[in-house]
Amino acid sequence: MNQFFPEVKKIEYRGPESKDPLSFRHYNPEEVVLGKKMADHLRFAVCYWHTFKGLGDDPFGGPTMIRNYNQSSEPMQAAKDTMHAAFEFFTKLGVNFWCFHDRDIAPEADNLAETNKRLDEMASLAKKLQGDTGLRLLWGTTNAFSHRRFLAGASTNPSPEVFAYAASQVKKAMEITHELGGQGYVFWGGREGYDTLLNTDMKRELDHMGMFMNMAVDHKKKIGFEGDLFIEPKPKEPTKHQYDFDAGNCMAFLQKYNLTNEFKLNIEANHATLAAHTFQHELEYAAANGMLGSVDANRGDMLLGWDTDQFPTNLYDSALAMYTIIRAGGFTSGGLNFDAKLRRQSIDPVDLFYAHIAAMDCFARGLKIAEKMINDGSLAENLKKRYAGWDAGLGAEIESGKADFEKLEQYTIENGEPELQSGRQEMLENILNGYI
Amino acid sequence: MNQFFPEVKKIEYRGPESKDPLSFRHYNPEEVVLGKKMADHLRFAVCYWHTFKGLGDDPFGGPTMIRNYNQSSEPMQAAKDTMHAAFEFFTKLGVNFWCFHDRDIAPEADNLAETNKRLDEMASLAKKLQGDTGLRLLWGTTNAFSHRRFLAGASTNPSPEVFAYAASQVKKAMEITHELGGQGYVFWGGREGYDTLLNTDMKRELDHMGMFMNMAVDHKKKIGFEGDLFIEPKPKEPTKHQYDFDAGNCMAFLQKYNLTNEFKLNIEANHATLAAHTFQHELEYAAANGMLGSVDANRGDMLLGWDTDQFPTNLYDSALAMYTIIRAGGFTSGGLNFDAKLRRQSIDPVDLFYAHIAAMDCFARGLKIAEKMINDGSLAENLKKRYAGWDAGLGAEIESGKADFEKLEQYTIENGEPELQSGRQEMLENILNGYI
Amino acid sequence: MNQFFPEVKKIEYRGPESKDPLSFRHYNPEEVVLGKKMADHLRFAVCYWHTFKGLGDDPFGGPTMIRNYNQSSEPMQAAKDTMHAAFEFFTKLGVNFWCFHDRDIAPEADNLAETNKRLDEMASLAKKLQGDTGLRLLWGTTNAFSHRRFLAGASTNPSPEVFAYAASQVKKAMEITHELGGQGYVFWGGREGYDTLLNTDMKRELDHMGMFMNMAVDHKKKIGFEGDLFIEPKPKEPTKHQYDFDAGNCMAFLQKYNLTNEFKLNIEANHATLAAHTFQHELEYAAANGMLGSVDANRGDMLLGWDTDQFPTNLYDSALAMYTIIRAGGFTSGGLNFDAKLRRQSIDPVDLFYAHIAAMDCFARGLKIAEKMINDGSLAENLKKRYAGWDAGLGAEIESGKADFEKLEQYTIENGEPELQSGRQEMLENILNGYI
Amino acid sequence: MNQFFPEVKKIEYRGPESKDPLSFRHYNPEEVVLGKKMADHLRFAVCYWHTFKGLGDDPFGGPTMIRNYNQSSEPMQAAKDTMHAAFEFFTKLGVNFWCFHDRDIAPEADNLAETNKRLDEMASLAKKLQGDTGLRLLWGTTNAFSHRRFLAGASTNPSPEVFAYAASQVKKAMEITHELGGQGYVFWGGREGYDTLLNTDMKRELDHMGMFMNMAVDHKKKIGFEGDLFIEPKPKEPTKHQYDFDAGNCMAFLQKYNLTNEFKLNIEANHATLAAHTFQHELEYAAANGMLGSVDANRGDMLLGWDTDQFPTNLYDSALAMYTIIRAGGFTSGGLNFDAKLRRQSIDPVDLFYAHIAAMDCFARGLKIAEKMINDGSLAENLKKRYAGWDAGLGAEIESGKADFEKLEQYTIENGEPELQSGRQEMLENILNGYI
Ligand SMILES: [Co+2]
Ligand SMILES: [Co+2]
Ligand SMILES: [Co+2]
Ligand SMILES: [Co+2]
Ligand SMILES: [Co+2]
Ligand SMILES: [Co+2]
Ligand SMILES: [Co+2]
Ligand SMILES: [Co+2]
Repeated sequence: MNQFFPEVKKIEYRGPESKDPLSFRHYNPEEVVLGKKMADHLRFAVCYWHTFKGLGDDPFGGPTMIRNYNQSSEPMQAAKDTMHAAFEFFTKLGVNFWCFHDRDIAPEADNLAETNKRLDEMASLAKKLQGDTGLRLLWGTTNAFSHRRFLAGASTNPSPEVFAYAASQVKKAMEITHELGGQGYVFWGGREGYDTLLNTDMKRELDHMGMFMNMAVDHKKKIGFEGDLFIEPKPKEPTKHQYDFDAGNCMAFLQKYNLTNEFKLNIEANHATLAAHTFQHELEYAAANGMLGSVDANRGDMLLGWDTDQFPTNLYDSALAMYTIIRAGGFTSGGLNFDAKLRRQSIDPVDLFYAHIAAMDCFARGLKIAEKMINDGSLAENLKKRYAGWDAGLGAEIESGKADFEKLEQYTIENGEPELQSGRQEMLENILNGYI
Repeated sequence: MNQFFPEVKKIEYRGPESKDPLSFRHYNPEEVVLGKKMADHLRFAVCYWHTFKGLGDDPFGGPTMIRNYNQSSEPMQAAKDTMHAAFEFFTKLGVNFWCFHDRDIAPEADNLAETNKRLDEMASLAKKLQGDTGLRLLWGTTNAFSHRRFLAGASTNPSPEVFAYAASQVKKAMEITHELGGQGYVFWGGREGYDTLLNTDMKRELDHMGMFMNMAVDHKKKIGFEGDLFIEPKPKEPTKHQYDFDAGNCMAFLQKYNLTNEFKLNIEANHATLAAHTFQHELEYAAANGMLGSVDANRGDMLLGWDTDQFPTNLYDSALAMYTIIRAGGFTSGGLNFDAKLRRQSIDPVDLFYAHIAAMDCFARGLKIAEKMINDGSLAENLKKRYAGWDAGLGAEIESGKADFEKLEQYTIENGEPELQSGRQEMLENILNGYI
Repeated sequence: MNQFFPEVKKIEYRGPESKDPLSFRHYNPEEVVLGKKMADHLRFAVCYWHTFKGLGDDPFGGPTMIRNYNQSSEPMQAAKDTMHAAFEFFTKLGVNFWCFHDRDIAPEADNLAETNKRLDEMASLAKKLQGDTGLRLLWGTTNAFSHRRFLAGASTNPSPEVFAYAASQVKKAMEITHELGGQGYVFWGGREGYDTLLNTDMKRELDHMGMFMNMAVDHKKKIGFEGDLFIEPKPKEPTKHQYDFDAGNCMAFLQKYNLTNEFKLNIEANHATLAAHTFQHELEYAAANGMLGSVDANRGDMLLGWDTDQFPTNLYDSALAMYTIIRAGGFTSGGLNFDAKLRRQSIDPVDLFYAHIAAMDCFARGLKIAEKMINDGSLAENLKKRYAGWDAGLGAEIESGKADFEKLEQYTIENGEPELQSGRQEMLENILNGYI
Repeated sequence: MNQFFPEVKKIEYRGPESKDPLSFRHYNPEEVVLGKKMADHLRFAVCYWHTFKGLGDDPFGGPTMIRNYNQSSEPMQAAKDTMHAAFEFFTKLGVNFWCFHDRDIAPEADNLAETNKRLDEMASLAKKLQGDTGLRLLWGTTNAFSHRRFLAGASTNPSPEVFAYAASQVKKAMEITHELGGQGYVFWGGREGYDTLLNTDMKRELDHMGMFMNMAVDHKKKIGFEGDLFIEPKPKEPTKHQYDFDAGNCMAFLQKYNLTNEFKLNIEANHATLAAHTFQHELEYAAANGMLGSVDANRGDMLLGWDTDQFPTNLYDSALAMYTIIRAGGFTSGGLNFDAKLRRQSIDPVDLFYAHIAAMDCFARGLKIAEKMINDGSLAENLKKRYAGWDAGLGAEIESGKADFEKLEQYTIENGEPELQSGRQEMLENILNGYI
C-alpha cells in the first residue's frame, strides 16, 4: 500500500491555517455538521476513468502524464497494477467510495466472452481490495461509447446488433456492480443522440432507448440488485445532440416510457452548464421532481463550450449545491463523485492529490456555508414571506383546487390591482456573501 | 382599404425572374405542391405585436419607426386605426391568417372590467374586418408579461392575486379567441421562470403552473372552444430561466400534470436556437411525440444570445422545417406565424412588406425544396437502408418486446462483432444542396 | 439633502458581523490597505443612467420602478429633482465619484442649440452640488446611440450629417466634463458597428471612426482638458457586431489610427464576458499593453447572452480584478464605476442602496483578498519559479535579442529534450480559495 | 497511382443534373468565371493532417477509420505509403494544392537531428511526387502543439528551452516548405495562450511571441524564401485562451511588434465562429486592413462550442466568402484549404471523396453566386447610395481632413436634424436569396 505514490502519506485534516498543500484545511470527516458527520453528508467518490486512466491527452495532442502503474506491456498486469495504485490512492486520500466503467478496470479482449472473464478477474481483485481497505463502490457503469462499434450509439444505434452488444455489456457491468455491493448503477448515454438529422430516425431511436431501459430494470430485478438506477443528463458532446439533454428532457423520457419509479438522476455540474442551466438549477429541478439521486461534482469553464471536467473549486457552486442537497434530504444511495480530470499541464502524480484535496475542501467548505445558511435562516425566512399569500386565503383556496377561472376573474374585478413586492435579489446576494 | 399603405398595391406572384421587390417570386398560393395548394400547406399568419405595435425600440434606444396609424392621442382611436391598417396589410400581402395578444389590439384601461370592455369593442371590429376580408384568426394569446404586475410571473407568481389576475386575463382572451373563430390558443410564459434561485420556490411555482393550465383546459371545455391549446417553449429571456425551456422540458411538464392530451407545442425557430437546439430538432422532437402543433417562423442570429426575432430568410431552415412538417402530416389547426420584427434600421412602412415577402418566398421555396426531397426519395431511401436491421430478424424481435438482456448477451456471444455502416453525413449534405 | 430617500440614513461601516443590511461590513473608506486608504484604491463611482434614469423596463415590459424624483411633468424640473436625488444618494452611500452621459442629466430639446442650453443649466447645478458635497466627476460621456438619428451609428454612420451631429454632441459633453473637473472622458460606441454586412462598408466606417477620434483628441487639447480619454470595448449589443469588440480589437484600432498615446481602455466586466473573455483577462491584457485606464464594475450572467449589467457580487471576480489592478499600479484617473442596474423585480428605492452596498462590500473584500494574495506571495513566487529560465542563461540571451533560429537549433540539438514542469492549476486554485 | 483508392476513378465534372455522387456538379476547373478559370479563383488545397492522418477518434473514443496506407509497423514505410496515397487522392480529386505540418509527413524520431533527417527524406519524396503529378504546395507549417513538450506553449512557453525547440522546428519546416516551392507558411499557435491566469505572465509571453515571429521573418529572408507568412487566428481550444484570438487581436499583435508588412492572415471559418464572428466578418476585417492572405475553408456547428472542422457545405457561407474575396482582389499566394475532417461515423475511404466533392461543389457554386451578385450589381448599388453623402459636400470635406469639432457643430446647428434612410436588411436578404 505504499508502492505507487511513495512520496505521499495519508492526507490529514490540519485546519484552516495549514500551509501544507497535502493536508485538508476544511474536510474533517468525523466532524459533525447539521447533525451528521461530514463524511456521511458528502460521500466523496473518486472516479477511475479520469484519475487512473486519463493521461492528459486532448484532441490536439497526446498524453502528457507518465505513470508508474501502467508500464507493463501485459495488459492484465497493467490493469492490476493500476487497481492497486487506485486503492492506495483512495486510502491515502481518505475517501470512502469509488466509481468505475467496465472498460476502465479491465482491457477488452478479442471477444465478449473473454472480455467478461477479464472483468470477472478484475472484479475479484476489486472485491478483495474493498475488503482490505473498507472502500465501497458508489456506482458502476458501462462504457458503451469509446469503442468504434458504438460510433452511431448503443441502445439508439441504427443496428440491432449493436443494441444487443450494448445490452450484453450493461448486463455484465450491472452484475459486477451488484457483486461489489454498488450503491447504484449509472447510465450516461455517451453516443445516444445524433450527429445529423439527415440520417436519423429520432422517434425510432427514442423508442429503442425506452425499451433498453425497461430491459435494464427487468434485469436488475432478476439479479436482485437493490441499488438505484441513475440516468446522467448531458446535452451534447461527443454527439451533436444527446437525447438525455438535461434533467427536464430526461424526465420527459422517463415519464413517457414509464420509468420514473425506477430511475433517479445523476446530475453533473459541467453537463448542467453545457445545457445552459446552472448546476443548482439542475439539482433543484431534480429535487422538485423527487429525482435527485447522485452528483458528478466537477466544474466547466463558463467560457468554453466543451466538457472540461475540471475539479470543483468554486465556493459558490459547492455552497449552493450543498444547500439544495441538504434541503432535499441529503444523499441516500448517491454521493459526490469527482468526475474531473487534471489539466493537461498538471503532469505530476502529486497533482492528483492536490486536485482532489482542493475539491474536497471546496465541498467541505460548501457544506459549512450551507450550514450557516440554514442555521441563520434569513434566506428561508425571506422565501416564506415571499410566498406567504399561498398559505392562507386566496392562495390556499387555489392550492386546494377550489378555484376556477370564473371565480378568479370575479376576485380580480372585486379586488383590483395586486400589491407587488421587491424581489430583493441584490440584498440576497449580499446575504449569501455574508456566509462565505 | 387603401388608407394606411397607399404606396403599396396587392402583392402578386410574378415568378422567379421578377425584379420587383414588391412581388412574390416563389409564393403562388393556388399552386399545387405535393397534392395541396401552397396556401394550405403554409397557412401563413402575420403577428399583430411586432408588425403593428413594434416601432424599432431596443434596450439602448427608443422607437425609430414613425407610423400613420398610431398618431391619435385618443388610445381607442389609435387602436382602431391600427386594426384597419392591419387588415389592409393582411389583404395586400395576401395572407389568410393573423395572430394577436389581448393587449395588442386594445389598450389597458384603469381596471379590468373597463379593459375587458375595450377588448370586446376591438374584438367586434376584428370580427367585422375578418368578415369583410376573409381573414381568419390562427390563434389568440394573452400578454401576461409586459405589465409591471407580472414582474415576478403570472401563474408562477409568488402572489396568488397575480395568479388570479392572469387567470382573468386568459379567460377573457380565450373567450374572444373563441368568438373570432381562432384555430388555437397559445401560452407563452413570458415571465414563468425565475431571475435567481435565491428567492424562488421552484416546486411550488411549477405546481401552480400545472393547476393554472388545468383550469385553462376546464374553461376551454366550458365555453365550447374547440381550437387547440399550444404551449410555446423558450429557454430564457426575459427571465434568467423559463420553465418552458424547450420542447423536452414542456413534455416533462405536460406529462407530470396530465396535460398531454390537451396541449400541443408551438415551436419557435429562435427559441429553439436559444435553447441550443436546431429549429428542425425541436420540430422533429415534437413530431416524434405527436405534439407538433404550430410554428413561429422566424430566425435568430446564431452568434447573438437574445431573441432577435428576425424574419426567416434562410433556405436551409425553411426547407428542413417543411420537410419535417410534411412528413409529420402537415398542419391541421396550426400554421406558420411570422413572430418576427423589422430590424431597427428598417424604418419605412414598405419594409414591412419587403420583410414578409422575403419570409413568405423563403418558406414557399422551402416547401418546393421539401417537395424535391420527398419526390427524389434519396434521403428516405438512405434512412430506410440504415435502419433496415430493425425491420426483420433480431431487430424485429427486439421491437416486438421478445428480447431481454440474457437473450441479447447470448446473441452477441454467438454472433461476435457487429458490422458497421458509414453515416455518410457529407454525402447527405451534398445531396441536400442538390435540392436547393 | 433628505428629500428623496428619507427612509435611509448615511451608510456606515459596522464590521463583518453587522446584520444591518443598510451598513457596510467590509468597506471602511479610511482603512489603510497596502499603504493606501480603501477609498483611494477603489475610487467608487455611481452611474447616473442606470441608477437614476433606469426604471426596470426590458424588451418584454415597461417600467416597474416608481420614483418620487421624476414625477414632474416639466422635463427640466424632473431633471433637477433627479439631480438632487442623485447627490443625496451619493452622499448617503458615501462614494466620492459619479459618472454621466449628456442625455442623462438634461432632456433633449427641439434643436441642438436649445439642448445645449439645457445641458449648461444642468451642468451648473451639478457643479454647485459637487461643491456642496465634495463629490467629484470620474468621467463624462455622450449618449450617441439612443436617439433614432443614431440608428445606423454615430461616427460610423453612412450619413456624414449624423457624423457631424455626433461630433457636436461629443464636443459639448467633453466641454461640460472639463467644466466639472472630470478625471476622464469615455467613448462607448453603442452603435458603432453593423447589423448586416450586406449594407456595410466596413473599411470606410473604420476610417471615419479613426478620424473622429483624432478630432476628439484635437478638441481635448484645444480646450485644455487634461483628463484621460477612454475607449470602452463591447463586442455586440445593440448592434450585431461592434467595432470595439474587445481590448485587443481596440488596440488594433488605436494603433492603426495613431491613437495609443491618447487613449486608455475602460474595461467593463460584462462586456469582457460577452466577448468570451474573463473580466481578469481584459484587465491583464490592458495592463500588459499599458492601457489600463478605468473599470465598469458589474457582472453578467454567464449563461445569458446579453448585457445584464448586474451589480458585482462575486468575490472571485473582485479579488482577481483588484489583484491585477494593484499589480498594474492601481488607478490614477480611473476608478470603479458601477455600470449596473437593479433587477426588474427590485422595485423599491432602498434596493438602490442594497445593491450598491453589496457591490462596494464585494470590492472592499476583493481588495482585502488581493492584499492577502500579495502579502502571502505564494502566487508570485510560483510565477517567478515557473519563468525562472528567462532570467538567466538561454532565456536571458533570447530576451536580450542575441538569439536567432540557427543558434536555437544548435542549442536544441546539443541539449535534447527540455524538462517540463507541472502547471499546478488545481493547487493554485486551492491556494486562491485559501485567501477567500 | 491506383493503389490505395482503387475503387475511385478521377472525379469528373458532369453538370448540375448528375446523380453520380463521385462527380462534380458545379466545379469545372477550366470554366471561366469573372474572367478567370474556376481553378485559379478557388485554388483548392487538401490538408494532410485531417485527411490522411485523422482516423475519427475524439475525446470519448478511439479511431473508427481503417485505412490501407498506415498498416506498416515500420513508421517510415507507413509514412511513405501514406504520402503515395495522398498524391493518388489529390490527383483523383483534381485539386492543384496541398498543405502539411512537419509532423504529418514524417514521424518524430528519438532526437531532433534524426527527426530532421526523416523530414528530409519525406520532403524528397514529396518533391518527386509533386513533379510527377503537377501538384503544388499551398503552404507548410509546424506542429508545435501535439507533443507533450509543448504542453505549456511553444514560443510562449515558460521555458526558454521549449522556445528554442519550437524555433528549431519552425526553421526546418520553413526550409522544406521553401524546398517544395510553397506559396506560403502558416503559424497557428495551437498552445500559444494559457489555461489559467494564476500561472501566467501574459506580458512576458506576448513579448516572447513577438520576438519569435521577428526571428522567423529574419530566417525567411536569410534562406530566400519568398512565400508569404500567414498567422491563423483562433480564440481557444486546445487552451482556454489563445493569444491569436481573432483577426483583430492578431492585428494588434502584429502592429505592436512591427510585423504588419511581413504577415497576412489565414482565416479559418470555424475559428471565426468560435470567436463569435461570422466567417465573412473575419474576411472583411482582414481585407479592410489589407491582410487577407489565405483561407481554411471549413465550417463549425453554430450550436457546438468546439472546433468541429466540418467540410464546408453551406452555400450562404461560400457565396459571401467568395464575394468578399473577389472584391478584395482574389487570392495571390493563398487559396482555399480544406482544414476539415470527416465525421467520426464517415468511416469509408470513399467518404473522403464525398466530403471533398461536397466542399468543392459548395465553393464552386459560391463562386458562381458571387458572380451573379457582382454582375447584377444591386448590392453594390445599394451600398453606393447608402454612403453617397461621403462622396461630395460635407462628407468629402470630412474625409479630406478639413473638418473639426467646431465646424461640425456649426454645421449641425445650421442644418438641424439629419435625414435618415432605411437599412433595408430584409430586402437585401431577399435579394441575396435571389442569387442562390
Ligand atoms: Co459525469
Ligand atoms: Co462531464
Ligand atoms: Co413566438
Ligand atoms: Co422569439
Ligand atoms: Co459600461
Ligand atoms: Co454593459
Ligand atoms: Co485551420
Ligand atoms: Co479548426
